[in-house]
Amino acid sequence: MSNNQLTESGYLRHFLTIEGLKRPLLTEIMDRAEQFSSISNQQVKKVPLLRGKTIVNLFFENSTRTRTTFELAAKRLSADVINLNISTSATSKGESLLDTLHNLEAMHSDMFIVRHNQSGAAEFIAQHVAPHVSVINAGDGCHAHPTQAMLDMFTIRRHKPHFPDLCVAIIGDILHSRVARSQIQALAILGVGEIRVIGPKTLLPIDTQSLGVHVYHDMESGLDGVDVVITLRLQHERMQGALLPSSNEYFARYGLTDDTLKLAKPDAIVMHPGPINRGVEIASSVADGAQSVILEQVTHGIAIRMAVMSMALGTQAEQHEAHS
Amino acid sequence: MSNNQLTESGYLRHFLTIEGLKRPLLTEIMDRAEQFSSISNQQVKKVPLLRGKTIVNLFFENSTRTRTTFELAAKRLSADVINLNISTSATSKGESLLDTLHNLEAMHSDMFIVRHNQSGAAEFIAQHVAPHVSVINAGDGCHAHPTQAMLDMFTIRRHKPHFPDLCVAIIGDILHSRVARSQIQALAILGVGEIRVIGPKTLLPIDTQSLGVHVYHDMESGLDGVDVVITLRLQHERMQGALLPSSNEYFARYGLTDDTLKLAKPDAIVMHPGPINRGVEIASSVADGAQSVILEQVTHGIAIRMAVMSMALGTQAEQHEAHS
Amino acid sequence: MSNNQLTESGYLRHFLTIEGLKRPLLTEIMDRAEQFSSISNQQVKKVPLLRGKTIVNLFFENSTRTRTTFELAAKRLSADVINLNISTSATSKGESLLDTLHNLEAMHSDMFIVRHNQSGAAEFIAQHVAPHVSVINAGDGCHAHPTQAMLDMFTIRRHKPHFPDLCVAIIGDILHSRVARSQIQALAILGVGEIRVIGPKTLLPIDTQSLGVHVYHDMESGLDGVDVVITLRLQHERMQGALLPSSNEYFARYGLTDDTLKLAKPDAIVMHPGPINRGVEIASSVADGAQSVILEQVTHGIAIRMAVMSMALGTQAEQHEAHS
Repeated sequence: MSNNQLTESGYLRHFLTIEGLKRPLLTEIMDRAEQFSSISNQQVKKVPLLRGKTIVNLFFENSTRTRTTFELAAKRLSADVINLNISTSATSKGESLLDTLHNLEAMHSDMFIVRHNQSGAAEFIAQHVAPHVSVINAGDGCHAHPTQAMLDMFTIRRHKPHFPDLCVAIIGDILHSRVARSQIQALAILGVGEIRVIGPKTLLPIDTQSLGVHVYHDMESGLDGVDVVITLRLQHERMQGALLPSSNEYFARYGLTDDTLKLAKPDAIVMHPGPINRGVEIASSVADGAQSVILEQVTHGIAIRMAVMSMALGTQAEQHEAHS
Repeated sequence: MSNNQLTESGYLRHFLTIEGLKRPLLTEIMDRAEQFSSISNQQVKKVPLLRGKTIVNLFFENSTRTRTTFELAAKRLSADVINLNISTSATSKGESLLDTLHNLEAMHSDMFIVRHNQSGAAEFIAQHVAPHVSVINAGDGCHAHPTQAMLDMFTIRRHKPHFPDLCVAIIGDILHSRVARSQIQALAILGVGEIRVIGPKTLLPIDTQSLGVHVYHDMESGLDGVDVVITLRLQHERMQGALLPSSNEYFARYGLTDDTLKLAKPDAIVMHPGPINRGVEIASSVADGAQSVILEQVTHGIAIRMAVMSMALGTQAEQHEAHS
Repeated sequence: MSNNQLTESGYLRHFLTIEGLKRPLLTEIMDRAEQFSSISNQQVKKVPLLRGKTIVNLFFENSTRTRTTFELAAKRLSADVINLNISTSATSKGESLLDTLHNLEAMHSDMFIVRHNQSGAAEFIAQHVAPHVSVINAGDGCHAHPTQAMLDMFTIRRHKPHFPDLCVAIIGDILHSRVARSQIQALAILGVGEIRVIGPKTLLPIDTQSLGVHVYHDMESGLDGVDVVITLRLQHERMQGALLPSSNEYFARYGLTDDTLKLAKPDAIVMHPGPINRGVEIASSVADGAQSVILEQVTHGIAIRMAVMSMALGTQAEQHEAHS
């Protein structure tokens, strides 16, 4: 995975993956999001930073929730937003993906937010766009979901700002989760003390140890002494074949309940990327409980997306000036 | 039905039903709409009152027409609008309704416009939203459609401002009509002299008399001396079983024609909530005739919705200031 | 086709067809587009010309690409845009087309952008709208697509500004193409020296010669000495029966390739209204080649639509002032 998401001077141009980014950049994204967080609490939740910019939601995979967060972030930056559900539109006339992209570029679009069920789609699109267009990966296959990872880091930092002291455990289907992959990369780059994954063998990647994470197959040992518990959604739709036990069996072994949560530190926070399957990967009492920061994650998702959008388009502006 | 739509100081927070509201509040809504009416005639039909506010159209039942009126009203108040067709989105991933709502709240939404085919849905949602969110009922099952009722009252007041002198007749399927229910409540609260309903026994509620309305089963007696004639849409889609005669038979007995309209006062106005079934509940010549104010109702619908939205969000602002 | 698209004083009110318009008006549209072109290159691609105006995309035939260009043009003029896909909305409740239109008018819409698969639909709608509404034809059946023709003229003028000297050839299915029909009219009005059409007999209209165009059935003679080569999309979806040879055979005889392009002048430009069928009507090497201005057409499409929208609504403003 190349670092074509940065300009030559190291500024963010695209945001495709956490992999290969440096700690100061992740910190800058969070610092910028901190500023936008306060805007969302004001009476007028809008800044004119991206006025006149055109941001296109290019969703090849339907996700109302994620699209809405990007749409809101763009509108609060005063950008114009176009929503395109590609599966049902241009390609139905047989136009190629690249022709669709080049047409949107020719309309002076400034940014594509890309969601796709194939790993590498956002990277592919970023390799082919015109110099004036930024690409943000809003989730591609099992590969990456970098804005989700950054909102998770931001949420952790809000509660537990000293990363080296932390022990973070991610529970569930690590193998198929673009969220987990991006989280692990971000946690490592930010210098988190210990990263653990907990799940059945069939749902853990083979190379976990090369990722620098510790592997556990049971909650008892895995959650012991943990500061941050991240549960993942059991993606029925992404599973193939018989890798998975039944929902009931999964909940019995890996569901986060009031009892299993007690295994972690008393002040541990509970996170989930949503949407949650109550009673499958997490008990309702935990999801809605005092240690849960799940809805804070949603709130921070807007600020993180505003930060990434404004940084990428700010880079454009600087380049633009440099060239003119 | 509780009065949880008002704040403790009696201001509008949600707008769920006409039932239980007081005359001064209904009058205030109409007075505020009067101001917005003049804006719609200006070259720039936009005021910055709700700039930076996020309004979410939460439509569980498809209605392009109603959604469009709310979307236009919100945009003319300079709010940002997100359209969500819930049946086809979040819930398809198995997320619960309340989780969807709490996520939207966490994104700092300020208002939900709710349309649902189940009676009580808007009330249910209002009971569960965060303190910073207002809920507007855009029609729930057979229960209520309060903005429709208010635009009807506003239209009547424009033509016949002295309510106590008026005799208003509503023709059609009162039993299943959320519009009729809200209209009758509003007419009663505003002190209209006489309220009549006209229709076959199978389409009238049993408790009409407790509502303070006079019941008629034929047009001849029902329309005699009437100032305002409201025809309702024959809701094929909401009927079950054999409550209804054929369309032809219905038109013969209850259709508003040039002839039957002559039974009312010569200056009676004709109203319909739309969309109209020409030749079923109303003749084309009447719908398009000199006494029809049907399109005025549509126009006033924008102003009424601007009024309700700005009042509910203004209340929030006041509460916000009180708390800070 | 009447000239009801102009006001009595000759200003543009609707934009339905190129037919019957005068050269100064077409030139004014292009001059105005020239001004908007520079806006699209600015950091803030937005002007407040149509702030507070409501523009409704009334699409009876799905076309994401065309809708997007109009939506972007409207937003860059600061108008509010409502997207309505009519086939799936109001008419599903059985409301008539005219009732839908009159309702949208009553909501104080200022402009309808109409796309319809029936020839004459935009004209029909323009005949029935209220005086305050402008109608723009975004393509109706096999009849007209005037904004497409004007963006093509604008693109030609950018490269070859002296129209009388030019020889322009249009290749393909002229018979069913609303684009070709509008292009031929515009080329004639602008005084282009020679207009040619190239295609199989089954795809050329019978009255070509009365249109003042020269007819060719082979590329060798048809492209000889041509300055502008316009290829048309092979509209599989609009064909009925066996008028067409196979795609392969069509490409062999009428596909624009590096070889056939050499028949034209060395500095000839290549145009296509999009979306292109690579390897059917045009070779990829030509579509992406140095003589291709296909993506410029897309860019100019925004400026042309901004020009037409602002002219039509500017006319309204003048009328409005004249009446008040």
